[in-house]
Amino acid sequence: MNHRDPLPATEKALQAALPLAFSSALAERFGARFSVAQAVRAHHGRDESSYDPMLPDAVVFARSTEEVAAAVHLCGQHQVPVIAYGTGTSLEGHILAVQGGLTIDLSQMDAVIAVHSEDLTATVQAGVTRKQLNLALKDFGLFFPIDPGADASLGGMAATRASGTNAVRYGTMRENTLKLTVVTADARIIKTGTRAKKSAAGYDLTRLFVGSEGTLGIITEVTVRLYPLPESISAAVCSFPSVADAVNTVIETIQMGVPVARVEFLDENSVKAINAHDKLELPVKPLLLFEFHGSEHGVQEQAQRVQDIAAEHGASGFEWATRPEDRTRLWTARHNAYFALLQMRPGWRAITTDCCVPISRLAECILATQDDCETSGIPYSIIGHVGDGNFHVLLLVDPADAAAMTRAESVNGRMVTRAIEMDGTCTGEHGVGLHKMNFLLQEHGAAAVDTMRIIKHALDPHNIMNPGKIITWQPAH
Amino acid sequence: MNHRDPLPATEKALQAALPLAFSSALAERFGARFSVAQAVRAHHGRDESSYDPMLPDAVVFARSTEEVAAAVHLCGQHQVPVIAYGTGTSLEGHILAVQGGLTIDLSQMDAVIAVHSEDLTATVQAGVTRKQLNLALKDFGLFFPIDPGADASLGGMAATRASGTNAVRYGTMRENTLKLTVVTADARIIKTGTRAKKSAAGYDLTRLFVGSEGTLGIITEVTVRLYPLPESISAAVCSFPSVADAVNTVIETIQMGVPVARVEFLDENSVKAINAHDKLELPVKPLLLFEFHGSEHGVQEQAQRVQDIAAEHGASGFEWATRPEDRTRLWTARHNAYFALLQMRPGWRAITTDCCVPISRLAECILATQDDCETSGIPYSIIGHVGDGNFHVLLLVDPADAAAMTRAESVNGRMVTRAIEMDGTCTGEHGVGLHKMNFLLQEHGAAAVDTMRIIKHALDPHNIMNPGKIITWQPAH
Repeated sequence: MNHRDPLPATEKALQAALPLAFSSALAERFGARFSVAQAVRAHHGRDESSYDPMLPDAVVFARSTEEVAAAVHLCGQHQVPVIAYGTGTSLEGHILAVQGGLTIDLSQMDAVIAVHSEDLTATVQAGVTRKQLNLALKDFGLFFPIDPGADASLGGMAATRASGTNAVRYGTMRENTLKLTVVTADARIIKTGTRAKKSAAGYDLTRLFVGSEGTLGIITEVTVRLYPLPESISAAVCSFPSVADAVNTVIETIQMGVPVARVEFLDENSVKAINAHDKLELPVKPLLLFEFHGSEHGVQEQAQRVQDIAAEHGASGFEWATRPEDRTRLWTARHNAYFALLQMRPGWRAITTDCCVPISRLAECILATQDDCETSGIPYSIIGHVGDGNFHVLLLVDPADAAAMTRAESVNGRMVTRAIEMDGTCTGEHGVGLHKMNFLLQEHGAAAVDTMRIIKHALDPHNIMNPGKIITWQPAH
Repeated sequence: MNHRDPLPATEKALQAALPLAFSSALAERFGARFSVAQAVRAHHGRDESSYDPMLPDAVVFARSTEEVAAAVHLCGQHQVPVIAYGTGTSLEGHILAVQGGLTIDLSQMDAVIAVHSEDLTATVQAGVTRKQLNLALKDFGLFFPIDPGADASLGGMAATRASGTNAVRYGTMRENTLKLTVVTADARIIKTGTRAKKSAAGYDLTRLFVGSEGTLGIITEVTVRLYPLPESISAAVCSFPSVADAVNTVIETIQMGVPVARVEFLDENSVKAINAHDKLELPVKPLLLFEFHGSEHGVQEQAQRVQDIAAEHGASGFEWATRPEDRTRLWTARHNAYFALLQMRPGWRAITTDCCVPISRLAECILATQDDCETSGIPYSIIGHVGDGNFHVLLLVDPADAAAMTRAESVNGRMVTRAIEMDGTCTGEHGVGLHKMNFLLQEHGAAAVDTMRIIKHALDPHNIMNPGKIITWQPAH
């Protein structure tokens, strides 16, 4: 496939073997938790993007912030690239070792450090996953809402500014991260933020590290906001005669201020795929999947309003799922949409991409993208967290078919350009990684990207922190 | 008063007259909108803090981003400090010209550029005030919720990460700013963010400039989120036997997830002052002032829950205000609390300070602070946006009484230390300015403040952007 060479030659460092003094020091400090084994490196050299693997030269498994700092200190001394690894579920090549170096696996930093239920906050080590956190919260009557689909680590979710299905109501990692512990490029341990709900005390370092994808520092602890479990939860599905009808239902729902907890769009292709994969019999039409949280009466009221709006747009087959098991079944199907599509073409790869636009432009953006997909002849599906104006296109490509790969990338490029022209963003939640670097310039302009570069150069002067991601070290000319 | 010398000698530059070439260039470009008149400089050399005025050497009134860039370009060429000025309502000395220089007054940049009602966003020039924006939104059925009390400019509110009474429900400027136009120290114009509700595209420059108090760049345009006017609004006041009862009512309300739109605490001293100032007859007891937004039934439900919780804490005199004029009267009284207290001692000054703690520590923090105020013998009042764990102490001091001034600062210092020890912040919403610089180090630690300093040095290498605010140019030793 044609993804093997994502960086211009000037950006590439020689992937040299690690300096001996460096490896020895790591081996001494980490013992069996330092590895240069091919299998371990291979496991850490791939994510869920369509990129071919790019292996680090070695991996350490850290168990504390101090251990991360020690490893980063050695990387700084020897100018070895260093990449943080959580669960490997990123989608844009974030964790690929494009310049080799050391990967720090944080999955053993899996302690829930504190649940302050009375303050609705939890502090966890970076390797704790969202499902693990929610399990720990069960007895408190609280939950952590952010749900990107994968059971990602909280450190990785903070580093990529993750969001997902619940963001329309509860916000993203940007809004829900209160406090971080970060190891910076000079191997110092800093604390950003406090457990207070708001603060006007100085530069917002928390928000600077959230979404920086490991290029400014490695997040080792995260304090997040929690929410009381809603008294009542209800889910509903309904089908629409057209994409426009479905999307316009969402637009009106948001404009009227109905506080939906989730609202997901699935196009016909997605519905077909999940029907097959999850043995469902949903009508093969554009579909919306809603979830409502609140008091019993509040939920009924929200649901009624949405049903009224949907009816005006020709919705049919309104089905309610108030029992937890029915809801779970629907949401599992939604979360399986990616794998369901993949299973329709065994051996093929999915290019998963996302963009986000102001909600008034959403129908137009999805429809134009759908047209473009149809024209390309590439099997695709479109799903979206449409309440936020955010949607995904999954394009299925035979990895042996270079021409199809190029066509798929063109579809992606045109979708992003379209979104940016609508005052939207090249990525709503997947992040930049390797795959969206060129689009960042298109979205923000040279001066703003230069401002990002100035910050990168200042905080990581030797370019050791996940080099070659988000922005190029030198401006493109 | 002892505030005249807030900076260590090493931080102070000689307040030299402006270079002739600099003044001539500005006079040529701005004509009568460039002024060195004493009265104009004096007007721009003070805010609503207790600091004595510190005058800039000159003032320009800008009318466009390009004009701001032109002025900043000249400041860069001649290494003249440059300070952005909105409405002059900041409370911690943010706009004082501690090193002289040029103040850029943005109040003539007062155009509402666009209201995208269908997307719930508005884009304004930095000089537009929040009341002006809300007036422009009236016919759209929308509102901009952030209400710091003063009719501040949106640029200033973004620059100081303002919040206020509605933040408990709607968030602060951090959550509600989508997009900025900023003039950086090198006089470039950058755009940060998009109108999409969320984005994972690169470093969060928007959040970096929000709260940077003009030390990294000058915000010239702001795009904010809007909200549909609630279908139903209701306000209520009730009194409590003790501070602890009032605060514990709030804590339980938040913990139960009741989505109150506002919840304000007023101590007995505040109630006394506003009774006198606004001719009200509120019982002279700790008081909570609530506002509920939602559907008609939703508001009733919220109100009932809060009333039940309050009753368990001995609340009395529950009074409802559903008519707009009654609500306005109550909230005007709340907003007048500052002036009401000041009027009790004509000629005296108020030291207004704030902190914010995790909500479980709020009662303890307020009670200890109240004890400390009592011990100090200084007239005071405590009011707070308690739903966020944020409260203010107003200390009234005769400016001729240096000893009282010192005692007041000690009370402030102990309050901040107490808040930080509770994992809270030295300022929930007023910002750092001059007054909280020392506390920033205490809150974040040397390594995090150094990280801020690295960013400041990188983005403003000649220290021209509002120098001497937030962090010292050199680390303190």
